[in-house]
Amino acid sequence: MRPIAIALLLAASPALHAAPGMWTLDNLPKEEMTRLYGFEPDQAWLDHAMRSAARLAGGCSGSFVSAEGLVLTNHHCVMGCVSNLSSKENDYLNKGFLANTREEEKVCPGTEINRLEAITDVTARVREATFGLTGKAYIDAKNAMEAKIASECVGEDAANTRCDIVNLYQGGIQHLYRYTRFSDVRLVFAPEYAAGFFGGDPDNFNFPRYNLDMSLLRVYANGKPAQTKDHFTINPKGAAEGELVMTLGHPGSTQRLLTVAQLETQRDASLAQRLFSSYELRGLLWRFSGENAENARIAQSALMGVENGIKSSVGRLQALVDPLVMDEKRRAEEELKAFVAADAARAERYGDPWSEIEAAQVVARNLAPEYGSIEAGGTFMSQHLGWARTLVRGAAERTKPNEERLPEYTDAALPRVNASLFAQTPLYPEYEKIKLQWSLEKLRERLTADNAFVREMLAIQSPSQLAASIVEGSKLGDVAVRKALWEGGQAAIDASDDPAIVLMRRIDPTARALRSRMETEVESVERRAAERLAQARFEQKGTSVYPDATFSLRLSHGVIRGWEERGNPVSPFTQVAGLYQRATGYAPYKLADSWLKAKGKLDATARFNQVSTNDIIGGNSGSPLINAKGEVVGLIFDGNIHSLGGSYVYDERNNRAVSVHPAAMMEALKKVYGAQHLVKELQR
Amino acid sequence: MRPIAIALLLAASPALHAAPGMWTLDNLPKEEMTRLYGFEPDQAWLDHAMRSAARLAGGCSGSFVSAEGLVLTNHHCVMGCVSNLSSKENDYLNKGFLANTREEEKVCPGTEINRLEAITDVTARVREATFGLTGKAYIDAKNAMEAKIASECVGEDAANTRCDIVNLYQGGIQHLYRYTRFSDVRLVFAPEYAAGFFGGDPDNFNFPRYNLDMSLLRVYANGKPAQTKDHFTINPKGAAEGELVMTLGHPGSTQRLLTVAQLETQRDASLAQRLFSSYELRGLLWRFSGENAENARIAQSALMGVENGIKSSVGRLQALVDPLVMDEKRRAEEELKAFVAADAARAERYGDPWSEIEAAQVVARNLAPEYGSIEAGGTFMSQHLGWARTLVRGAAERTKPNEERLPEYTDAALPRVNASLFAQTPLYPEYEKIKLQWSLEKLRERLTADNAFVREMLAIQSPSQLAASIVEGSKLGDVAVRKALWEGGQAAIDASDDPAIVLMRRIDPTARALRSRMETEVESVERRAAERLAQARFEQKGTSVYPDATFSLRLSHGVIRGWEERGNPVSPFTQVAGLYQRATGYAPYKLADSWLKAKGKLDATARFNQVSTNDIIGGNSGSPLINAKGEVVGLIFDGNIHSLGGSYVYDERNNRAVSVHPAAMMEALKKVYGAQHLVKELQR
Repeated sequence: MRPIAIALLLAASPALHAAPGMWTLDNLPKEEMTRLYGFEPDQAWLDHAMRSAARLAGGCSGSFVSAEGLVLTNHHCVMGCVSNLSSKENDYLNKGFLANTREEEKVCPGTEINRLEAITDVTARVREATFGLTGKAYIDAKNAMEAKIASECVGEDAANTRCDIVNLYQGGIQHLYRYTRFSDVRLVFAPEYAAGFFGGDPDNFNFPRYNLDMSLLRVYANGKPAQTKDHFTINPKGAAEGELVMTLGHPGSTQRLLTVAQLETQRDASLAQRLFSSYELRGLLWRFSGENAENARIAQSALMGVENGIKSSVGRLQALVDPLVMDEKRRAEEELKAFVAADAARAERYGDPWSEIEAAQVVARNLAPEYGSIEAGGTFMSQHLGWARTLVRGAAERTKPNEERLPEYTDAALPRVNASLFAQTPLYPEYEKIKLQWSLEKLRERLTADNAFVREMLAIQSPSQLAASIVEGSKLGDVAVRKALWEGGQAAIDASDDPAIVLMRRIDPTARALRSRMETEVESVERRAAERLAQARFEQKGTSVYPDATFSLRLSHGVIRGWEERGNPVSPFTQVAGLYQRATGYAPYKLADSWLKAKGKLDATARFNQVSTNDIIGGNSGSPLINAKGEVVGLIFDGNIHSLGGSYVYDERNNRAVSVHPAAMMEALKKVYGAQHLVKELQR
Repeated sequence: MRPIAIALLLAASPALHAAPGMWTLDNLPKEEMTRLYGFEPDQAWLDHAMRSAARLAGGCSGSFVSAEGLVLTNHHCVMGCVSNLSSKENDYLNKGFLANTREEEKVCPGTEINRLEAITDVTARVREATFGLTGKAYIDAKNAMEAKIASECVGEDAANTRCDIVNLYQGGIQHLYRYTRFSDVRLVFAPEYAAGFFGGDPDNFNFPRYNLDMSLLRVYANGKPAQTKDHFTINPKGAAEGELVMTLGHPGSTQRLLTVAQLETQRDASLAQRLFSSYELRGLLWRFSGENAENARIAQSALMGVENGIKSSVGRLQALVDPLVMDEKRRAEEELKAFVAADAARAERYGDPWSEIEAAQVVARNLAPEYGSIEAGGTFMSQHLGWARTLVRGAAERTKPNEERLPEYTDAALPRVNASLFAQTPLYPEYEKIKLQWSLEKLRERLTADNAFVREMLAIQSPSQLAASIVEGSKLGDVAVRKALWEGGQAAIDASDDPAIVLMRRIDPTARALRSRMETEVESVERRAAERLAQARFEQKGTSVYPDATFSLRLSHGVIRGWEERGNPVSPFTQVAGLYQRATGYAPYKLADSWLKAKGKLDATARFNQVSTNDIIGGNSGSPLINAKGEVVGLIFDGNIHSLGGSYVYDERNNRAVSVHPAAMMEALKKVYGAQHLVKELQR
């Protein structure tokens, strides 16, 4: 890898202290790392690190921590699985789960783990295929080429290989990431919810913290634990204050390279809209959970997800209304504009991508209510309608050649569709009805009762009646029914009188039309413009700027370090003793019984949680924090409140990653959970 | 009254079309009215109009419509009363209420109606009392003088006279408003919720509309219907398109004269915070209402209030993120700054009030979480704690001389305290527990578990335990207990072991300290600066600028007129036929039985609702819309979606007031409700 010049994006700012960044493994800031830490990872170190890192396809990170497929990640990353495996009788979510033998390890339905094997630059092929195209032609050509590349990469082994096109720098560079796909993932260990999420939502994104937010999974291949030669080992001593620590994980999404117009759309329209909806849903779920213990169990992981999303969006919004942040964004944009304008050929080459993006924002805002209510994710909060959309679309898409399909139904993507469609997940009819009724009311609210689509949907049936007719009438809760419809293809879909299928058949043309408009009039415009912006930025600064997060593997360097909160220093470490001091008799500060019992045995001075300056974001959950030797010295599970603005800008003064200290993990496995067999495996 | 030069606040804006305004009756834009409509109200017209207008002290407007005390207002303005009078057996809220005789008219607990009798300028007295003072000394002196003036005005007749100091132009002018107080208010007629709020929240702030949002109350004096010689009559023909119509009502609050820094605080901090909390509460109440019919009844009016508040805040936020609005605000501010700077003596006289206000914003934002959670309105959503605060504070305040008390406990204010404290209102323990638990959790969330106040409150008991202990243990639900504690004064409070009183005793010092800081460090700074801004503005423009709304009587002129919505014309009228077309079989579009039955008898072409260009805001609900003859030609109940930005700016292009057409009112009373006795009284 070539050494690169270091010129940090925000270095010129008087107020924001930029630094770390989320670097791809093929473009690390090695000079900076050498200068700061006297450490430069060599290729062997990097290859080992890459193959020891794991990605949970559902949206988390992890790492291999034994040669027999053991994966370390967060408790909150496996909550969906634990929830699905739980029942009224076996409440693993709240009681915890520990497999004492391999036979007791339980399959996590629909969970997929990926290990990155290779990165290839395919920018030239994609650019060639889309040369000179705009609008729908551009989107189609791009999708077709990406499907072709992914399909060639997967080859005959779709079951075990996954290939993703990663669009870096808003499409300035396309990389092909080839992964080994592990789709037989089993639960090995999960602590009680009260231990994994001690302090609950009130403590979330706050520090000091005392969370054992860890879990262990195991990947299987051919029914046996997979061999994972490359793996990290845990060093219970952890790292010292000020020591270099690195995260290796999969930050999901950042918006650091967006234009000011795009940031304004987020600030003034989309973030607020999302927050309003999430807060209302939170109130609904809070009350539903308060009705009885069973409801609380049913909604527990959904409520936690909503609450987590709220804090994260609030943090982002706070960054965008901070004048320092927007001023800096404006300054950087003006600087790039000036660079482009300074040379006539350059100005000719790049044109005015900023104005093109700004114009697209108007379209995006006007389309948002219908697009968001009818097509985009979270449209109808209903498992039945979610399955129905996959079945209806999947049938239609599979009749087309691979290159002409929607990206999520290409051959390379179908294994994921199968995994989620055929997962055996529990269904709670009352809960489903409530969520669906609510989302139908929100549809009506957002589009108004005078909207044609709303009138068609709700002319005869009220939201509550329509929800009841779907939930009571649909048979899609049965995996066999879903399988038959999937395998029956278009004919089976056409013939179905399942109410969820009937509704989705009716909605699909409208929904597809909205998607097509959004792609043609907004996304392709933004993409085309962003490509030129990225090229202009490369010409200005080379690749000394890291790309926005894309849920692909990134390394962020940093050190263990506290920060100053309104003038008061915050220590980087907490200790076991603090957990017992913070505990009250009630949730979310109620200790799990196992921890009450183990109190006398535990080392009160053992470190529990810690903060470091690494640059992380949602998706990094479960990332290993490793030292220069490649040992695990922490398990990332959160960021502090200031880290939330990290969507738009990293500020080293107070942006902190929060991790579980390895000492706490080992103390807990040994003394709280008596998991000696796992301790042994981790130390091998 | 002297004629005044017309120079509208925003006339220079290229994009916003300003106009109407909310004018005090002693400073009408008579020249403009003459020019636009050829109509200039004379003193007799104004005196009659003033004494025919009514204010519902709880936050609405109304008008006297018979000589025997009949008051016309909105259904939604009496929902609290109707709700309180309702029970499982007599569900007046959903079934409607009609008193066929005077004896059947039911007292609305705690409802107070005011009739304005006189306006006096007291600016000089207040200014003299506060001359040269700042901070706490300023607030104390101001409160003392205002209490003194009000007290003199009320004299010996506190039961029947109410006197309020009205701060116009952010304190640039102080007027004393003397009202006749009617505290025996009885319910005469209220339609079914399904008729009064047809279309519910989805249609709220939208148009076309079909709401019979009307009700009739009657004021009593000495146990008999009060004589109200001055009153309006209803003209069932209404007004023609383009005809002059005027509202006479009590707009609650606008922020049109705030500085840019204050608007930014609203945009970036306070409005979003309020919305987040309201949305969450809405979800909670939605689910609570969905549990069963009784819960739906219990929470109905609270849910409606929250939903209404949400739309209104969203509309305000939309205006503040509209660059046109903020650019215009910046322009106007720069213009005034330039006017002040243009003259050395002027610059010396006014100083830099903008910077002072801007500095106070920082303090306000930092104080907001604690102030909002511990002291300000809506702190704990609990009837018990609300009563307890009034009792604890009231006892302490009444030991002080009148001039040294908090304004809400001065002699002039005590009748209101009594009315609300001793009102017989129903109490639903489960509902109270849920609301209180939720608000305690929000307290913890907003201040974090590390906050000293939170730790003290919740160290031993969880939010749910604390809520249960208050609701189950407090005896304050009993009016007699509240009365005894109030009359027992400080000794009774000190001796009480009622858990709500105990808690409030404990909290009160902290809460008072926060209030004191907010008053000293924020409000007095803003007030002092705003006074100078107002004076500078008077020097620049005279009183050709109307003051912000202050829930005092205002006249707004306008005409019946539709508008253009995304290029499509919206007609100003709807008709009875449209109601039946819009109806579905389910709420909120389900017709009341009475309307289904009356369908054949009603004139299908009778006008139902209408829009006009009058400038209104929350508080105007229930305002009469009158023509030049002083006849009622409409009953204001809403504004369209664009009217919501009216908090900050009036835009004539699309800001519309929505009213019930008099034809619909008379058709309904005659043919749907068979209220011939009321029709007769209204026509006398």
